[in-house]
Amino acid sequence: MKIVVLDGFTANPGDLSWDGIAQYGDLTVYERTPDPADVIPRIGDAEIVYTNKIPISAEVMDACKNIRMICLLATGYNIVDINAARKRGIDVCNIPSYSTASVAQLTIALLLELCHHVGDHSRACHDGTWTNGKDFCFWLSPLRELDGKTLGIIGYGRIGQAVGRIAQALGMKLLVNAHHVRPELESETCKYVSLDELLKNSDVITLHCPQFPETTGLINKDTIAKMKDGVLF
Amino acid sequence: MKIVVLDGFTANPGDLSWDGIAQYGDLTVYERTPDPADVIPRIGDAEIVYTNKIPISAEVMDACKNIRMICLLATGYNIVDINAARKRGIDVCNIPSYSTASVAQLTIALLLELCHHVGDHSRACHDGTWTNGKDFCFWLSPLRELDGKTLGIIGYGRIGQAVGRIAQALGMKLLVNAHHVRPELESETCKYVSLDELLKNSDVITLHCPQFPETTGLINKDTIAKMKDGVLF
Repeated sequence: MKIVVLDGFTANPGDLSWDGIAQYGDLTVYERTPDPADVIPRIGDAEIVYTNKIPISAEVMDACKNIRMICLLATGYNIVDINAARKRGIDVCNIPSYSTASVAQLTIALLLELCHHVGDHSRACHDGTWTNGKDFCFWLSPLRELDGKTLGIIGYGRIGQAVGRIAQALGMKLLVNAHHVRPELESETCKYVSLDELLKNSDVITLHCPQFPETTGLINKDTIAKMKDGVLF
Repeated sequence: MKIVVLDGFTANPGDLSWDGIAQYGDLTVYERTPDPADVIPRIGDAEIVYTNKIPISAEVMDACKNIRMICLLATGYNIVDINAARKRGIDVCNIPSYSTASVAQLTIALLLELCHHVGDHSRACHDGTWTNGKDFCFWLSPLRELDGKTLGIIGYGRIGQAVGRIAQALGMKLLVNAHHVRPELESETCKYVSLDELLKNSDVITLHCPQFPETTGLINKDTIAKMKDGVLF
């Protein structure tokens, strides 16, 4: 069985081993496949294709008749034409939860950067700006307190919920908009609301929904017009 | 009754009103008192003294005989000689909890800066470094995941506990060292330990104890030698 990895570098820049996959067949790993013209020849007659961000279209599936399974080295699978795969009986696998904690942590790190600009303040301290200031207190930009503020979470799966837990620990209230409403997740500080209510009443809005046609371009001129003044993304 | 504020600027840079205090007496507000020689003449025969960071020594109390109360526009009261105040029957008031949420939030912001350097990555994106890169993934420095790591908290009062709640939401386990042990705060992911155990087993260490003689210089050559490799403060 032939197995091809089209863009293995970001998943394994050299600190991991591909042996776990190589034991199942004849494995070829390409670090990158930047030229779309290379996709079909590189897959060739392989049965298993691993991709991180290289799109697999219906055209590719038609050209590479042996493909039985497309494995995503990622969570998002918008780069694979899953309808075309389904029609051809090709399995598509993603990794639904490998990065929940990381993404939630990064989301909060992005928010706290907007609130504090820690790096800028660190540099200003190194430069002597604080030492040479007249006051004990020192800030370059307004510091924003999140306690008591409202976080709007669009998409409330594993990652959205993980972000919500951290935000609640920071003292924030949650307004949640999601395709599947799960009342058991509601509490004194977490309510499901319509998208319009979320946009109108949130101080911070964060997106954790999959990219589907109905969620593409969700933040646009019209939805921004519905947000309250001073909203932080 | 005369009331003097020695360094009001950082508490009220102009967006607040002193009227709430002024209604109780003849109020004089100095924005700053940088010269120690001005402290005694500025207090003069006032009965109430507000200070944020201007030290009030026994000498000041002896020179300003009318002082009945010293109010700190802050939480920390290490700048007031409280033993001298007690002997002279002078009340000393601080603000024990005005900034709990802010300080906890800033603590986590400092930690997430060490993990992500968001500002640096933002600048690199603006500069085109990501756009011109060969990979979808992009980082300038290793990104550190906190989930499963251990946070050592020295001092477990209101602020330490607030930091602990956020850290636990980020997936961290807590090792706590505090003067007063409160077993009811222990859980599966929060244990009181000795200072040495905390230093040895924590991935991140954060200090939330008051500055007393026994806590001054707590992080020093000897305690750093007891920490594990790769510890983040």
